[in-house]
Amino acid sequence: MAKILINGEADDRIDVLDRGLQYGDGLFETLRVRAGRPCLWAAHLARLRWGCERLGIAMPAEARLRDEAGRLCAGLDDGVLKIVLTRGPGGRGYRPPRDARPTRLLAVFPAPDYPPQYAQAGVAARLCDTRLGLNPALAGLKHLNRLEQVLARAEWDEPDIAEGLMLDIEGNVIEGTMSNLFMVRAGRLCTPGLSRCGVAGVMRARVMAEAGAQGIPLEEGRIGLRDLAAADELFLTNSVIGVWPVRRLDGRDYAAPGPLTARLAAAVEAADV
Amino acid sequence: MAKILINGEADDRIDVLDRGLQYGDGLFETLRVRAGRPCLWAAHLARLRWGCERLGIAMPAEARLRDEAGRLCAGLDDGVLKIVLTRGPGGRGYRPPRDARPTRLLAVFPAPDYPPQYAQAGVAARLCDTRLGLNPALAGLKHLNRLEQVLARAEWDEPDIAEGLMLDIEGNVIEGTMSNLFMVRAGRLCTPGLSRCGVAGVMRARVMAEAGAQGIPLEEGRIGLRDLAAADELFLTNSVIGVWPVRRLDGRDYAAPGPLTARLAAAVEAADV
Repeated sequence: MAKILINGEADDRIDVLDRGLQYGDGLFETLRVRAGRPCLWAAHLARLRWGCERLGIAMPAEARLRDEAGRLCAGLDDGVLKIVLTRGPGGRGYRPPRDARPTRLLAVFPAPDYPPQYAQAGVAARLCDTRLGLNPALAGLKHLNRLEQVLARAEWDEPDIAEGLMLDIEGNVIEGTMSNLFMVRAGRLCTPGLSRCGVAGVMRARVMAEAGAQGIPLEEGRIGLRDLAAADELFLTNSVIGVWPVRRLDGRDYAAPGPLTARLAAAVEAADV
Repeated sequence: MAKILINGEADDRIDVLDRGLQYGDGLFETLRVRAGRPCLWAAHLARLRWGCERLGIAMPAEARLRDEAGRLCAGLDDGVLKIVLTRGPGGRGYRPPRDARPTRLLAVFPAPDYPPQYAQAGVAARLCDTRLGLNPALAGLKHLNRLEQVLARAEWDEPDIAEGLMLDIEGNVIEGTMSNLFMVRAGRLCTPGLSRCGVAGVMRARVMAEAGAQGIPLEEGRIGLRDLAAADELFLTNSVIGVWPVRRLDGRDYAAPGPLTARLAAAVEAADV
């Protein structure tokens, strides 16, 4: 069971008129917890702050979030911390109240029980039918409007399929339901641009920074299904899983992990800050 | 203050792990209540059922919803009933639980205090900068992913601007932040198609049915800003406001109400079932 703090108090229920429920009016972050400490804290907080600026939600004091996260994560050897920040309670109607008081919801969960071979030897993935809509105003944000991901993740039951890739409505490959995607071809690293849809993952940024530091050529742009078919390596990233090589997608086998994937996975693992 | 029933029990708080909050994984309906009775009940329930089918959420028994709505609306002369239906509580992760038990949340609110002249003599509206994204998979649904509307409604404060119109990312006029749009030109009625974005409003369908019954030519299609500028009449619809003529938009004045608007407004008012 989850341990939960709502605005700093142990609780597990929230005002039904909270705009997070009524409109998905809020943001979230999902962090890996190791040895009692949330990983990549600064990067997650920076993304939350960026989301707050874009949605016009007041960012809570970082010290307060850090304190609350610390209380929940103390003694947790391996787990997941989820931070949800909503615009807070409000009456009926889309208009944000002038005096909105954001709701902070922090919860810790046990670490997911993914088989260790997912990270070591790769995963099988599929292509989802559900497409990502295009909306530059919300692109990149980890906001609470996640019906597209819910519908995509509902498409398959097979336990040996670890992730589904989503295209946008124009057929560009964008990301997994819960992860970002990277492709390697001829020694170059490529990841879909996220200016029109998708989530700008913290682990994605971490991998991109690492590639830059190592002098690996990196391109952020449009990727089509034909590009995936021609790729030497594919891998998926998020803050909880780290890096998962893709060993099979859409009837095609890939080296898993390929050499560049292995190098980047080792680097982000070592640099986990 | 709102009177609220959650799964049939008087309550005002909900499990924070409800997927309605975590992902916007649910639907809602907003009904006008008059003389203790929710108006257009059958049409709202039909849309809720349609949404449930598209999202794969189990539709509650209609008798149960009717009973709960009846308990809340009894004695309420004029007000608003909001029904929220979420996929229910669930753990971490987008995948819908197999045994999901949807959450029913019904709340009644006082009638909004819009000036009576809005319906009689029309409203001033504006054009919003926030665009609607394109996503056929979710188009038409009144789901809980409403950040676009929240951002659009946050654009203005002027109390004399009653509504903002939203374009999609390709520049087509789609709807208001909380209402659907109709245009009259040369005796023909036209309303934007909603196959790629927008909410298929119950009052919109009501007006379209009435136009059909009266033999008024009706077109559902693409509308651009130039079409609005050339329109003889504009009006907005939703279940709470009924029909609002638009008297001013983007520096241009319109007849309010124009003859066809007045005729349709009177018809839907009279046929309120």
